[in-house]
Amino acid sequence: MKAWQFTTTHEPLVLTEVPEPRARPGEVVVDVRAAGLCHTDVGVLEDEGWLSTLVRTPITMGHEVAGVVSAVGEGVTEFSTGDRVGICPTTPLGAPGFNYDGGFGEQVVVGTDALVRIPANVSFALGAAGTDAGMTSHHAVIANGQVTAGTRVGIIGLGGLGQIGARVAVLAGAEVYAAEVNEKVWPLAREIGAKDVKPSIAAFKDVGLDVVVDFAGFGTTTAEAIETVRTGGRVVQVGMGRLEATISTKALILSQVTLIGSNGGTKEDVQGVYDHFASGQLAPAVTEIGFDEIPEGLERLARGEVVGRLVAVLGE
Amino acid sequence: MKAWQFTTTHEPLVLTEVPEPRARPGEVVVDVRAAGLCHTDVGVLEDEGWLSTLVRTPITMGHEVAGVVSAVGEGVTEFSTGDRVGICPTTPLGAPGFNYDGGFGEQVVVGTDALVRIPANVSFALGAAGTDAGMTSHHAVIANGQVTAGTRVGIIGLGGLGQIGARVAVLAGAEVYAAEVNEKVWPLAREIGAKDVKPSIAAFKDVGLDVVVDFAGFGTTTAEAIETVRTGGRVVQVGMGRLEATISTKALILSQVTLIGSNGGTKEDVQGVYDHFASGQLAPAVTEIGFDEIPEGLERLARGEVVGRLVAVLGE
Repeated sequence: MKAWQFTTTHEPLVLTEVPEPRARPGEVVVDVRAAGLCHTDVGVLEDEGWLSTLVRTPITMGHEVAGVVSAVGEGVTEFSTGDRVGICPTTPLGAPGFNYDGGFGEQVVVGTDALVRIPANVSFALGAAGTDAGMTSHHAVIANGQVTAGTRVGIIGLGGLGQIGARVAVLAGAEVYAAEVNEKVWPLAREIGAKDVKPSIAAFKDVGLDVVVDFAGFGTTTAEAIETVRTGGRVVQVGMGRLEATISTKALILSQVTLIGSNGGTKEDVQGVYDHFASGQLAPAVTEIGFDEIPEGLERLARGEVVGRLVAVLGE
Repeated sequence: MKAWQFTTTHEPLVLTEVPEPRARPGEVVVDVRAAGLCHTDVGVLEDEGWLSTLVRTPITMGHEVAGVVSAVGEGVTEFSTGDRVGICPTTPLGAPGFNYDGGFGEQVVVGTDALVRIPANVSFALGAAGTDAGMTSHHAVIANGQVTAGTRVGIIGLGGLGQIGARVAVLAGAEVYAAEVNEKVWPLAREIGAKDVKPSIAAFKDVGLDVVVDFAGFGTTTAEAIETVRTGGRVVQVGMGRLEATISTKALILSQVTLIGSNGGTKEDVQGVYDHFASGQLAPAVTEIGFDEIPEGLERLARGEVVGRLVAVLGE
């Protein structure tokens, strides 16, 4: 079967013919129907700091995966051939594309502990976006941001995760102020229910934001968030566009800001996001591309040209 | 009267003859008996970033002040001539040395809202150290560090604040691991009750520290704390030896670390620390110097040569 494999930093993905995987006991084979493209993938391609997080190279990239169970290993009873599933990337099994071959290939083999059922009326593209972007956004805003009705929330970056995070905050009854450098995305911000959108979160200094959730993570965004949030406010760091940030410890201390690293979530978060998708309340923009367009899609992400979540759709 | 005044960054303090201050309504004149020297003072002398925090220049430096009330303004009834008091630097009146002339002069004039009575058996030197170092350390460890019995706590920097913070943690029943570059201080760490002391907090990576409180604040210490604390752990930032830190947002996110800026405390914290001093449970090392030795003392602080809190003692 075909797979887009990562070989090393600063090298493009390589389309490779690899053996079809087989399910060992407790595992299933999932025929990939949708695989999300993520800024983290761009980071892995550009920054050597990620190499240590990969179990081996070459490895098939792609950590947001949805598909159909096509074979089950010995002892598997909860899932059957034909089941529509997403793969949760935060279980002890690790993440596809990091701890085992991921979704930029035609099939993935994974333990059933990572599987979450996709409701019948939810597309595979949304199913893929929900496993990482959905789960992570929900966890950052609700669990770590402590966002409830009336909270004044800044959301930095309306990419795949940020738009979901902003919408989750609006659905929780919060006042949402968005920062997004790409003006093409501004109409989407208002559609989601944001009160305002500007190029930089610093523009909302006078709002007295209780929380800023940084889905961009360009270092400068973390620094700006710390200097913008109100005294005693919270900054939740989700995006990892860069691996480092130079922050003002003076502002952190004098304004008594709390900076929280937020990573992932749980299978229950994925299920919760799928339920939102099924009810129609949460409908993130998804741009679908073909399997062959994955490298080009990652380049578009790197150039900041993508509105909403970019998902490669296979074999339908 | 004589006062050591700050004129601008990169210039030594200037010994100046200034008019004796008079108490306006609601204020008292305090004859300074002890004034603590703090790494923040060194920061103000070396880093332009602090200029904006000073109400004016020249200004008499010194924000840890204890003394005797020598005159009371109109309407003052709660305090009388002869009362032994410390000045809390975190009330709405602001801090001596920043918002009004501070303790590196022979007298300070201040509103009574900032005053805390010093117990009869507590020295002025400890009274001074308790107003900032004591209050701040207690607040950082207990309120922000959430330290209780059994917590594994890393303390970075056993200067004036750090030694109090470490002792407060030990008294709370915590396991304390100290990081201190100055080996001369190591015996003090054990005396305080620390389980171990090393030059860098990174040496305690395997301990699985629940909390690290950084009383040094050299930027690198914040970065090391984030990379050393256990997954889901807390880093409390108190020290501001530098105004910036370059941190690994990757470590922050992947280990889901919370970084909290801790600043000051309350009059109740000062009172609490004074009570600890009076009971003898908390006895931070204090090195006393003369009023004339203040500039030299600040240089010793800048060179990292000081064990415990450096306090200038006047007029006894």
